[in-house]
Amino acid sequence: MADETLAECPALTEQETHLSESSPSAVPPSAVPGTQRPGGRTAKVRRAVLDATEETLATGGFHTLNMDQIAAAAGVGKTTVYRRWGSPVGLVTDLLHDMAEQSQPAADTGGLAGDLRANAALVRETLTDPRMGAVFRAVIAAAACDEECAAALHGFYRTRLAEWAPVAARAEARGELPAGTDALELLRAVSAPLYYRFAITREPLTPADAERAVTAALAASAAGAFRTSGGPDGPE
Amino acid sequence: MADETLAECPALTEQETHLSESSPSAVPPSAVPGTQRPGGRTAKVRRAVLDATEETLATGGFHTLNMDQIAAAAGVGKTTVYRRWGSPVGLVTDLLHDMAEQSQPAADTGGLAGDLRANAALVRETLTDPRMGAVFRAVIAAAACDEECAAALHGFYRTRLAEWAPVAARAEARGELPAGTDALELLRAVSAPLYYRFAITREPLTPADAERAVTAALAASAAGAFRTSGGPDGPE
Repeated sequence: MADETLAECPALTEQETHLSESSPSAVPPSAVPGTQRPGGRTAKVRRAVLDATEETLATGGFHTLNMDQIAAAAGVGKTTVYRRWGSPVGLVTDLLHDMAEQSQPAADTGGLAGDLRANAALVRETLTDPRMGAVFRAVIAAAACDEECAAALHGFYRTRLAEWAPVAARAEARGELPAGTDALELLRAVSAPLYYRFAITREPLTPADAERAVTAALAASAAGAFRTSGGPDGPE
Repeated sequence: MADETLAECPALTEQETHLSESSPSAVPPSAVPGTQRPGGRTAKVRRAVLDATEETLATGGFHTLNMDQIAAAAGVGKTTVYRRWGSPVGLVTDLLHDMAEQSQPAADTGGLAGDLRANAALVRETLTDPRMGAVFRAVIAAAACDEECAAALHGFYRTRLAEWAPVAARAEARGELPAGTDALELLRAVSAPLYYRFAITREPLTPADAERAVTAALAASAAGAFRTSGGPDGPE
């Protein structure tokens, strides 16, 4: 199966044979926009390479990712890019790690409905943003044809869902949720209808869709649909 | 944008230049398995070509679709395949039309919960089936990098959701749903959490996940979360 999923992306294995130490770009990383973050040269190189990777995913998609072009666009030597990221899959995987690290902290509006609305709005705004929508489409497609990308995408959502879990804990403490509500299931219920339209049924994603996702998640959680089974007072 | 999305799949445009009338396969369509459906030669050729397309998507994915190999696998002349389907995108599009035509009729268990459970089980069984899961992953990836495939995928789900809409109408007639419930929103609520795990967060898809999707959709619909706005008695 591993061979088959790899065969789905024939360009990848070809590109991995292009390793070459010749003609690294002469542009120093410090001249690349977006590298002014704190950190040394290693951090700046990573930022430049991931910015170039995101740009390529946004404009061309996963199958246009080319190691040599990323090195040139980032102003980084090819050998550095090949040595540190190995392949286009390595670039996508590290970009997803970076996106997880930069994931916005959860909202804290003082109420469950407000927090879930903020979450749904963030998901909707990200997916309907032309650039980030294209990036998400590209990483979802990459995950569909490469298991390493799939694992990285899984890790991204695990991080993002965990970051918002305190929303449910605070709501439960305020008595807004039944005891034993599974925070991750509640959060998945808000995101799922939005991603379903975005990536599966390919339907428009309106503010009304985001509001409906929140309303449905609130009603389902109030009815105990997301309580963990086996709890002291869980659903039968 | 159209150029950019097409550029995401460079193999496609290359393959379209391979049109060749030489060496059509000598195997008659009638010798190909799965062509015993009613219908004339045209229907048999279509069946053989779509079966070969599905097989390729299941084993190698969208980017391994090759017109010449499909013609050979289907035992159909290359010119026929190029003339009728044009490109790998044309093959995927027609396969999605075919999948929509063959979509199973909605369950009628006599109760809303039973009907939705049957729907969730069907979705889960399809997505966790090794062959059909791979086919769905491939068409979702194809839709991510080609707008024509995206439109065909949209059409597939429009057909499938419409086919199951009577489930909600019958439930409303039995008094199991608030008046004015949007059948499609109810059905999307059952499918979305399953597809979200399958294609986005890449999490396992268990019978408990299917049951939770149904429980949540029932609770949300009972609370009026899926009522159409603007109805005589709709949500505020």
